[in-house]
Amino acid sequence: MNYRIIFNTLGKVVWAEALFLLLPTATSLIYGESCTYFLITVAIALVLGTALYLIKPKTDMVFAKEGFVIAALTWIIMSAIGALPFVISGEIPSYVDALFETVSGFTTTGASTVANVEIMSKGILMWRSFTHWIGGMGVLVFIVALTRKSSDRSIHILRAEMPGPSVDKLVPRSRDTAKILYLIYMALTVSEIIFLWFGEMDLYESIVHAFATAGTGGFGIRGDSIASYSAYSQWVITAFMLLFGVNFNLYFLLIARKFRYIFKSTELKVYLFITVFMTALITINTSNLFANLHDGIRTSAFQVASILTTTGFATADFNAWSPFAKTLIFLLMFVGGCAGSTAGGMKLSRLIIIVKRVKNELRRVLHPRTYTLVKLDGKRVDDTTLHSVSTYMFLYMFIIAGTLFLLSFNGLDFETNISAAVSCFNNVGPGFSKIGPTLNYTVYSPFSKIVLSVAMLLGRLEIYPILLTFSFATWTNKE
Amino acid sequence: MNYRIIFNTLGKVVWAEALFLLLPTATSLIYGESCTYFLITVAIALVLGTALYLIKPKTDMVFAKEGFVIAALTWIIMSAIGALPFVISGEIPSYVDALFETVSGFTTTGASTVANVEIMSKGILMWRSFTHWIGGMGVLVFIVALTRKSSDRSIHILRAEMPGPSVDKLVPRSRDTAKILYLIYMALTVSEIIFLWFGEMDLYESIVHAFATAGTGGFGIRGDSIASYSAYSQWVITAFMLLFGVNFNLYFLLIARKFRYIFKSTELKVYLFITVFMTALITINTSNLFANLHDGIRTSAFQVASILTTTGFATADFNAWSPFAKTLIFLLMFVGGCAGSTAGGMKLSRLIIIVKRVKNELRRVLHPRTYTLVKLDGKRVDDTTLHSVSTYMFLYMFIIAGTLFLLSFNGLDFETNISAAVSCFNNVGPGFSKIGPTLNYTVYSPFSKIVLSVAMLLGRLEIYPILLTFSFATWTNKE
Repeated sequence: MNYRIIFNTLGKVVWAEALFLLLPTATSLIYGESCTYFLITVAIALVLGTALYLIKPKTDMVFAKEGFVIAALTWIIMSAIGALPFVISGEIPSYVDALFETVSGFTTTGASTVANVEIMSKGILMWRSFTHWIGGMGVLVFIVALTRKSSDRSIHILRAEMPGPSVDKLVPRSRDTAKILYLIYMALTVSEIIFLWFGEMDLYESIVHAFATAGTGGFGIRGDSIASYSAYSQWVITAFMLLFGVNFNLYFLLIARKFRYIFKSTELKVYLFITVFMTALITINTSNLFANLHDGIRTSAFQVASILTTTGFATADFNAWSPFAKTLIFLLMFVGGCAGSTAGGMKLSRLIIIVKRVKNELRRVLHPRTYTLVKLDGKRVDDTTLHSVSTYMFLYMFIIAGTLFLLSFNGLDFETNISAAVSCFNNVGPGFSKIGPTLNYTVYSPFSKIVLSVAMLLGRLEIYPILLTFSFATWTNKE
Repeated sequence: MNYRIIFNTLGKVVWAEALFLLLPTATSLIYGESCTYFLITVAIALVLGTALYLIKPKTDMVFAKEGFVIAALTWIIMSAIGALPFVISGEIPSYVDALFETVSGFTTTGASTVANVEIMSKGILMWRSFTHWIGGMGVLVFIVALTRKSSDRSIHILRAEMPGPSVDKLVPRSRDTAKILYLIYMALTVSEIIFLWFGEMDLYESIVHAFATAGTGGFGIRGDSIASYSAYSQWVITAFMLLFGVNFNLYFLLIARKFRYIFKSTELKVYLFITVFMTALITINTSNLFANLHDGIRTSAFQVASILTTTGFATADFNAWSPFAKTLIFLLMFVGGCAGSTAGGMKLSRLIIIVKRVKNELRRVLHPRTYTLVKLDGKRVDDTTLHSVSTYMFLYMFIIAGTLFLLSFNGLDFETNISAAVSCFNNVGPGFSKIGPTLNYTVYSPFSKIVLSVAMLLGRLEIYPILLTFSFATWTNKE
């Protein structure tokens, strides 16, 4: 294990966080709020970052193992430091609550322990939403994009942080891939800010909501999330939630004018089909709740986009909907957006691979001598990917079962617990019963909040980095 | 497709059912009840059975495909005919309800639509429990055991009906394997009858409860299931539920005095560990509900054995237990007993194979060049089994999601629906909320009851037979 490069990279990560903290600091200054809690945190980050950075690696060799450990520790240290402004400012006095909020922010879950967000300061709310934006594309992707001398080995770091069953480099060099991804991410975010600003939101509100949409996070600044904003703003957010749930590789192909590949994408087709189909079902099912068809379609489309992309914004209390609509919402929580997007969940491409695999297997049972390959977009899915998708799905089930088990100590009802486990692990945010879209996670004990924080990290980093970092085998085997 | 052998075999199946119906007929006669409804059903079965049997096969070639179709149609035709006595006698007037009850019986689920079992006739209650016994070991296993001239091809029929990831022949000939299994099954059932009769139950009660235990079904004759029987009877049933959840191959090894293989069985060790561990957890958690420790242990052990083996008898209303205990019950529903037992669920051996596979895959992620085999009881698990276990698990998840979706049309709460889907598909019986152990499935619409009946059949036959029989590909491909 190359310990030195781990510490050195973490140093850069903490520096990056100090840099990120300047945005909420500036916000506080603009609105005449105190910003000492941000400055204290920046100072702590700079000292810690420098100390870690001074550990110079002897070699820049990074294998899969180091990649996983770096990713896991990055996300833990970012959250540990990112929670400080909430605690020091006194806006979230408990450190466990603040940590839950920050993990929820970085992992783009959007589950909150804040009972009333409307009394929080502008700077703190900016930081809260900004964590979504940082976590959406990933901190390490940011660092790789900025590092001048980056070896090809950094693909292992990208791979550990980026979601989906397989990570493609868009261009030969990892650094350029990371740069392109961040540029697309920024361009989309700026577009959303402009669109929102064009409506009734001021610049501050537009930025905060665009950050939360971009990371598919879901932290807002009003008690009713997006419900009291205009139909225009709701449609803009719906559209951008869906845009951020698309595989970013497709935007690269769009820029490169390779339209043929975009139209061939099975994942995109399934994604659009699910969005339209589920919106139609829920619109019909909830029609009695709305004055007119437009309200019904807008509300259904918003909720479907929000849950499918695991954003978690709300314009309606789906906890009060019919069992049919609630069940659809529950099933959508598992899906998540496309691979290579900022969305959580199990990712559509995994589901598609599994469905194809099951079909093949059933054919094999009928005709034992036939052998068919699993293909996606015309390309063969190799055995390693097939294997790792299966393993991922099994771990996925075990983690939901384990989270449900650990939450059950808390004494809350079964529906609350199962929806909390599913929602947090898939990085959605709201759940059912006592943690519905109009409620929050204050009902849970500190122990449960830590369990849910771990579930959120496992979900965002897609299990392996966290699991392997805390497994004995990673540290004992000398390789 | 060898249509003729399918019809011919179904003919034998219907004959066998006519034979089975003689037991409840005799019961009715002994207790001076009317038995015309049984005689009418026997007559229908004999006519239909003879008509089907007269279709003589030109060849006795049976491939996997024919095996699956025979298994699926056997279970459907058995249920369709088995429902008649309930309807003709007027004790369950609706045919859909009667079909649900019979499918629930044969699949050894034990979910009921009868509001008050205590007013039903002795003959009907005997038939209801006897369906558990018939379905537990399987009708086709019975037929293969009885068929004088049975080709080696009949392993395909056994395989389609017997639970577990792989079916071993105990002895070279399928017919002898089937015979041995039935003899063990009968010996255990008779032992339980004797043990129960020794307590406060009369012979009738002993037989009915032994049948329901043997098939891991769960139909009883009292409104409170087993709760009002003595501690002695409860312990006897607990012990036998656990015995029927063990892989029957182990009993064969016991008879063959190959003790070494028994002690080596990983599945047995895990099975015993889960039983003891879960009983301990629930005893501690529910200690405030019981007057003394013995009551607590007995009640916990009974419920754990009942749910783990998917029997579904109850001596306590676990729906009223703490969220912690309820969550354990929920998780146990998935497990099921050992492969090659009469229990439902996903079977422990599948879970063990998956856990081992996941461990291997995690090791491979850390050290890409290492390659380890998945082993169970010292033997390598071949790739075909690994593949089919994965596919099975994916189908398992899809079916639970699909059942939940279809049930949600019914308007019942989420907790009821998810527990119904999980409980019926795993052939357990009781669920939570409106279908708790003291309640029944009358709350569901006829459509939902048909959905749940299909789920029960999918669960009992382990998906493939039903799925493939109703898939287009089975019937179009000429092979």
